[in-house]
Amino acid sequence: MLGLYFDGKELSVVERALPKPAKGEALIKTIYAGICNTDIEILKGYMGFKGIIGHEFVGKVQEANDLNLIGKHVVGEINIACGKCEFCMQGLGKHCPDRSVFGIQDKDGAIAEYLTLPIQNLHVIPTDISDLQAVFVEPLAAACEIIEQIQILPEYNVLVIGDGKLGLLIARVLILYTKNLQVIGKHERKLDLLKNQGISTMLLHDFKEDRHSFHIVIEATGSWKGWEMARRLVRPRGFIVLKSTYVGNKLFNPASLVIDEVTVVGSRCGPFKTALYLLHKNTINPLDMITKVFPFKQWNNAFQLAQESESLKVILEF
Amino acid sequence: MLGLYFDGKELSVVERALPKPAKGEALIKTIYAGICNTDIEILKGYMGFKGIIGHEFVGKVQEANDLNLIGKHVVGEINIACGKCEFCMQGLGKHCPDRSVFGIQDKDGAIAEYLTLPIQNLHVIPTDISDLQAVFVEPLAAACEIIEQIQILPEYNVLVIGDGKLGLLIARVLILYTKNLQVIGKHERKLDLLKNQGISTMLLHDFKEDRHSFHIVIEATGSWKGWEMARRLVRPRGFIVLKSTYVGNKLFNPASLVIDEVTVVGSRCGPFKTALYLLHKNTINPLDMITKVFPFKQWNNAFQLAQESESLKVILEF
Repeated sequence: MLGLYFDGKELSVVERALPKPAKGEALIKTIYAGICNTDIEILKGYMGFKGIIGHEFVGKVQEANDLNLIGKHVVGEINIACGKCEFCMQGLGKHCPDRSVFGIQDKDGAIAEYLTLPIQNLHVIPTDISDLQAVFVEPLAAACEIIEQIQILPEYNVLVIGDGKLGLLIARVLILYTKNLQVIGKHERKLDLLKNQGISTMLLHDFKEDRHSFHIVIEATGSWKGWEMARRLVRPRGFIVLKSTYVGNKLFNPASLVIDEVTVVGSRCGPFKTALYLLHKNTINPLDMITKVFPFKQWNNAFQLAQESESLKVILEF
Repeated sequence: MLGLYFDGKELSVVERALPKPAKGEALIKTIYAGICNTDIEILKGYMGFKGIIGHEFVGKVQEANDLNLIGKHVVGEINIACGKCEFCMQGLGKHCPDRSVFGIQDKDGAIAEYLTLPIQNLHVIPTDISDLQAVFVEPLAAACEIIEQIQILPEYNVLVIGDGKLGLLIARVLILYTKNLQVIGKHERKLDLLKNQGISTMLLHDFKEDRHSFHIVIEATGSWKGWEMARRLVRPRGFIVLKSTYVGNKLFNPASLVIDEVTVVGSRCGPFKTALYLLHKNTINPLDMITKVFPFKQWNNAFQLAQESESLKVILEF
């Protein structure tokens, strides 16, 4: 089979034997794989990963001990946990200290003709969710993680900073909880995708900051300026939800969090079931966020397009 | 009357006319005033405060429009809010953007023979709470703020870093919620005050760090090393409660909070009613934390003793 391999320096297509599922794993034939910002970060050295890249996918089960799964279209959770430690016993496998992470840490990923994942990581896609929609389950789940972590009351003023793929999905989830939602970004065309849904948006250079005016600020820019803006705009006793990771250390004084009693919530991967439910009910339809679908052999063009600032989701088809 | 005035450089006793209560304020004759670490920080320039220092006190009401208050022994909340803004209307007067803060910001404080505070800031001391116990209401309330902000389940492993006055009060509050409480400090004699209550304590140099082993870590050292230790010891999905303020910016990468989904909770002043209840019920008795009571005229010795590392609460008597 063919797969897209990152050797720590550059990407290239490699030919490999069909992967052999480990005990408890299924063999899955990839249908689509999405390119995520984390993949772009990996190309810059994030996590020091070497292997087959990619972690957003939908595929068809080829081999599995659970015969009910054969032929089913599935998506997969990316944290592969030991299943035995204290975290795993508490349902927090994504924080298992011995975990590997699909396409990110010690486990080959999704941008290949075939992949393997533990059966317990798989979710069967209902037939009313299309394969292209299913590619969004993983990032939509990450957006839904926020509502698992903090309570959003309808009267709260909520700000999302960032109009990237994750920022848009977050906005589409949060508008279900509060109408007092504002999204700030740099790309008119991306923000327009939210306007169509009645979500209030504004370009960064038109936005007049009203200090301490939001109960909840979601930082989804990936830039330190986003963090500083969040800090200025959150109210005392408010919440900053961090979805971004930054490269390197920054100067910061946590004392300001004490005086204003601000809570900072780190937020990562989220609940697949919630994401599947929102797609199944058509409450959220992310298809307008697809910039382009490329055949796998055009992976180079796909990665180039994915890195352009006007791009949203770029998908590879197998 | 005499009061202890900080001119931005040094402390000195000043003679003043009796303060005239503003509308809605009471005139209070000070009985005792406690010296807090924040007072020591103010002497180093914190908040740029100039005025009569001190914010922990118990006193006797001399003048008030509410005649029921006359002659009563009272303590007082330190944030003096406008009472009209959005925060005040929501009961968050301590975050009122137009607030002054007793003995800390734009309002003369407690280390004087007389003081004034709004009647709405006052709490009458039940007769079963002694005047010396009442001096601890303000810091005990700050300790209680933690249980207003986060839920502490009995099965949680909780760590308090720091055996200062606030650290000890926090430990005495949290032991009511979980028996899995550990306190780390540098002073054997201070920690011994907790051991007597069955709280597990350890000297820092005897403590072997088990990474990611606590659901909740309370940082109450006032030192950046305490923050770094908290960051190492908190579990994924756990909480760091920041009670400390640090001087100046530090290098830090919030990305680590995202990966481990750690929540950082800034925590400041707390509920006086809860503190009064705990003292009234004798659930917490802080009298063993008094290092020494000085007559006011020995304020210089009192401030010197308060800054020694073995000291706990130093109190001035009027």
